Amino acid sequence: MKHFIDQCRQLIGSTHVLTDSSDMTSYLTDYRQRYIGTAAAILKPANTEQVAEIVKLCAQHRIAITPQGGNTGLVLGSVPDQTGRSIVLSLLRLNQIRHIDDINNTITVEAGCILQQVQNAANSVDRLFPLSLASEGSCTIGGNLSSNAGGTAVLHYGNCRALCLGLEVVTPQGDIWNGLRALRKDNSGYDLRDVYIGAEGTLGVITAAVLQLFPKPASQLTAFVAINSVEAALALLNLARSNSKDTVLSAFEIMSSYSLALVKQHFPELKQPALKEHPYYVLIEFSSQDSEAANCAALENLMTIALDTGTAQDAVLATSLAQSNTLWQLRESISSAQAAEGKNIKHDISLPISQIGTFIQQTDALLQQKFNGCRMVTFGHLGDGNLHYNVSAPKNSSIDDFLAQQNAINRVVYDSVAQFSGSISAEHGLGAQKRDEILRYKSPVEMQLMRSIKQALDPLNIMNPGKVVQPLP
Amino acid sequence: MKHFIDQCRQLIGSTHVLTDSSDMTSYLTDYRQRYIGTAAAILKPANTEQVAEIVKLCAQHRIAITPQGGNTGLVLGSVPDQTGRSIVLSLLRLNQIRHIDDINNTITVEAGCILQQVQNAANSVDRLFPLSLASEGSCTIGGNLSSNAGGTAVLHYGNCRALCLGLEVVTPQGDIWNGLRALRKDNSGYDLRDVYIGAEGTLGVITAAVLQLFPKPASQLTAFVAINSVEAALALLNLARSNSKDTVLSAFEIMSSYSLALVKQHFPELKQPALKEHPYYVLIEFSSQDSEAANCAALENLMTIALDTGTAQDAVLATSLAQSNTLWQLRESISSAQAAEGKNIKHDISLPISQIGTFIQQTDALLQQKFNGCRMVTFGHLGDGNLHYNVSAPKNSSIDDFLAQQNAINRVVYDSVAQFSGSISAEHGLGAQKRDEILRYKSPVEMQLMRSIKQALDPLNIMNPGKVVQPLP
Repeated sequence: MKHFIDQCRQLIGSTHVLTDSSDMTSYLTDYRQRYIGTAAAILKPANTEQVAEIVKLCAQHRIAITPQGGNTGLVLGSVPDQTGRSIVLSLLRLNQIRHIDDINNTITVEAGCILQQVQNAANSVDRLFPLSLASEGSCTIGGNLSSNAGGTAVLHYGNCRALCLGLEVVTPQGDIWNGLRALRKDNSGYDLRDVYIGAEGTLGVITAAVLQLFPKPASQLTAFVAINSVEAALALLNLARSNSKDTVLSAFEIMSSYSLALVKQHFPELKQPALKEHPYYVLIEFSSQDSEAANCAALENLMTIALDTGTAQDAVLATSLAQSNTLWQLRESISSAQAAEGKNIKHDISLPISQIGTFIQQTDALLQQKFNGCRMVTFGHLGDGNLHYNVSAPKNSSIDDFLAQQNAINRVVYDSVAQFSGSISAEHGLGAQKRDEILRYKSPVEMQLMRSIKQALDPLNIMNPGKVVQPLP
Repeated sequence: MKHFIDQCRQLIGSTHVLTDSSDMTSYLTDYRQRYIGTAAAILKPANTEQVAEIVKLCAQHRIAITPQGGNTGLVLGSVPDQTGRSIVLSLLRLNQIRHIDDINNTITVEAGCILQQVQNAANSVDRLFPLSLASEGSCTIGGNLSSNAGGTAVLHYGNCRALCLGLEVVTPQGDIWNGLRALRKDNSGYDLRDVYIGAEGTLGVITAAVLQLFPKPASQLTAFVAINSVEAALALLNLARSNSKDTVLSAFEIMSSYSLALVKQHFPELKQPALKEHPYYVLIEFSSQDSEAANCAALENLMTIALDTGTAQDAVLATSLAQSNTLWQLRESISSAQAAEGKNIKHDISLPISQIGTFIQQTDALLQQKFNGCRMVTFGHLGDGNLHYNVSAPKNSSIDDFLAQQNAINRVVYDSVAQFSGSISAEHGLGAQKRDEILRYKSPVEMQLMRSIKQALDPLNIMNPGKVVQPLP
């Protein structure tokens, strides 16, 4: 190992090889602070060629690699295991915007670019890069691609996968695949791009990408709507779809009354809209390429219909971007508020939209039956069928006792998700956290297909081993 | 082989095992009538289980399988080779619409459903399945998925890949993978779906799919516009993007004056718009969810700007669906008109949109220099960067002499495509036709990745062998 580290120092320079435990801590610690991995070193190459050289060296020495971007993942996908025999390959120094083509509406970026940096670069040529999520100030685009990030703009623009036209990847053999195509149509062989996107760094290291840019909306307006039930939320979603005129329904987020109460309790400085208490609230965003006036008219029209038909009980419209941001901030603060309330059990699930009402009703009841008094913090991207279906300990109970039941709680939730043909990971990935959990829900055929691909592309199993899928013993 | 055929008869019934040469001809003949393959039999299973049984039997006997839908492909992807040792696996009897969920906006269909049947099923619940192409009356959705079909709706709705949420696949081992998920978000492992989509049946047999449905536009209107150059077309594309208000730019097709002249000559019954002759014409389609009035206003506004700025020279607007269909028919008839003019050399290429002007100018010049008098029939989906860049023989020359130069002509075109970072197959695939051609343009690293995936998923090389990628000898 010492010889290997020396070779790394020669390759990328001593200052970019961290071996001191204090220097390494932040790279080894899980975003949610639940776990600290170990590693022989943190390596910070400057460019794709250096990444390739390091990977070659790792292959030669059979050293495991944990590729890492902003280390903001939620499923233990970007932190190494406890063997101490692996290295963390940080992509943070590959942070160049390589090219912007505002006629082709594409941008070519390196993996270590912070998401916000990509958004800003798009903005500088009057375009939109729509990917947007809570950690956008620190997550990297390489991590976003490797985990096929979702976020708040999926409803109109799709997942991260849909935003990417081409990739550059360093394979587990240390070869560089230049697939940096800027084409909307290309049927000239297997879709390697989508093999690497969402593979959580287990099949290769994404080092750069060509991403799509979009026209910037002229106006984005939001409404905050009180409703009586999840069914009402689904009816409102349908109304919003059929009454958006030509504006775009760009977000449709649900949050339970209790989610919002937690925000009020822990972030009293955030102004909440003056609405009577109702079981659920919905945040609706309309976007217009045309004008604020057209957008406002469309959203007001929808609200009139929703209130007249009794689908919505009450509503406020944000009439400025600042007001709109305040409403979004409430939505974005739910996770932190729940964390402030105490450790909790998160579920990032997706379901066919038609099944969500029954799912919540049935699963809430099952959980209360088995874990009486547990508090549901239910919110998320309803328009995408994606719920953050989180569970907090019963009031005044021991959090440790509650957390000890995590597996049992997961079982109830995930079994129910499976019954409704949903996914136990909508946007976070499997990482190490759900790697074994998924074995219960995917067929042996599917797991074998995944293993075949892993074995074919990474036969030495050095690329982020222990994440997503394990080789058969 | 006789024993194998007998087993097949037992499995799926004698009437669904065709061995008579006259019964087999249509299954063995390439859509463009250039090629006739051979096979031991055509097998027509009734359902997924029968497909799996047949594939198991083929694996056991090492018999090659050519999966086939409507057999409308253009790259020799769905016809077998000349060994006579393979079977054609026709999916035409798997033609059930299994399920429609109009709240989740999804439809579950079997692979052998004709595209038009899927469009009609969507229409019956007041939804749109947007995939649309010339052969929609006879191509199957399984073939569309296997070739990641493009067509005329890609600009707004994406390629076939983007329309598919889940798949059912029979693997080359005869296992059934049920990946029929109806989810907008699912990050629970490798993206197997996109591995099979566009793989042209070389990795497994797609037997069913979950597809996305969309709201039906309230109005679709087209304009037929005369322009002076490809550069003007690109400027018009930009204008259309920034002046569509909130309507959707749903198609942007270019055709050269000569393409249209061929249509006039061979289909004199098709009424052409009364426009002065110009080098190029563009067909623009706007779609509105709102109203015909809003749509018409947006399109008229664009045309006013385009004519005022001199971007467009002349234009007619279709003021009814019938008129619009007539304009589309001109566009759709170019291939047939060129075929009526004589055999020709087709290129289905894509380029970064910003490069198209220079590409055409430079490549046209190269071709004239080397193949003096050859006639360019240039048209296609300009908004997607996808050109059908077809070459006809010089007037009054021998077509056979011209076709003898096919490889040399391909070389000029494809080398130029590569120089501009384009793709030699935008929407047709590689099949057998471009399988070796692609070796010139993809890196050894990429070809090796493709071979690894083929080898991992189809180690016996029985699934559509000889298409897309060959194992190393």
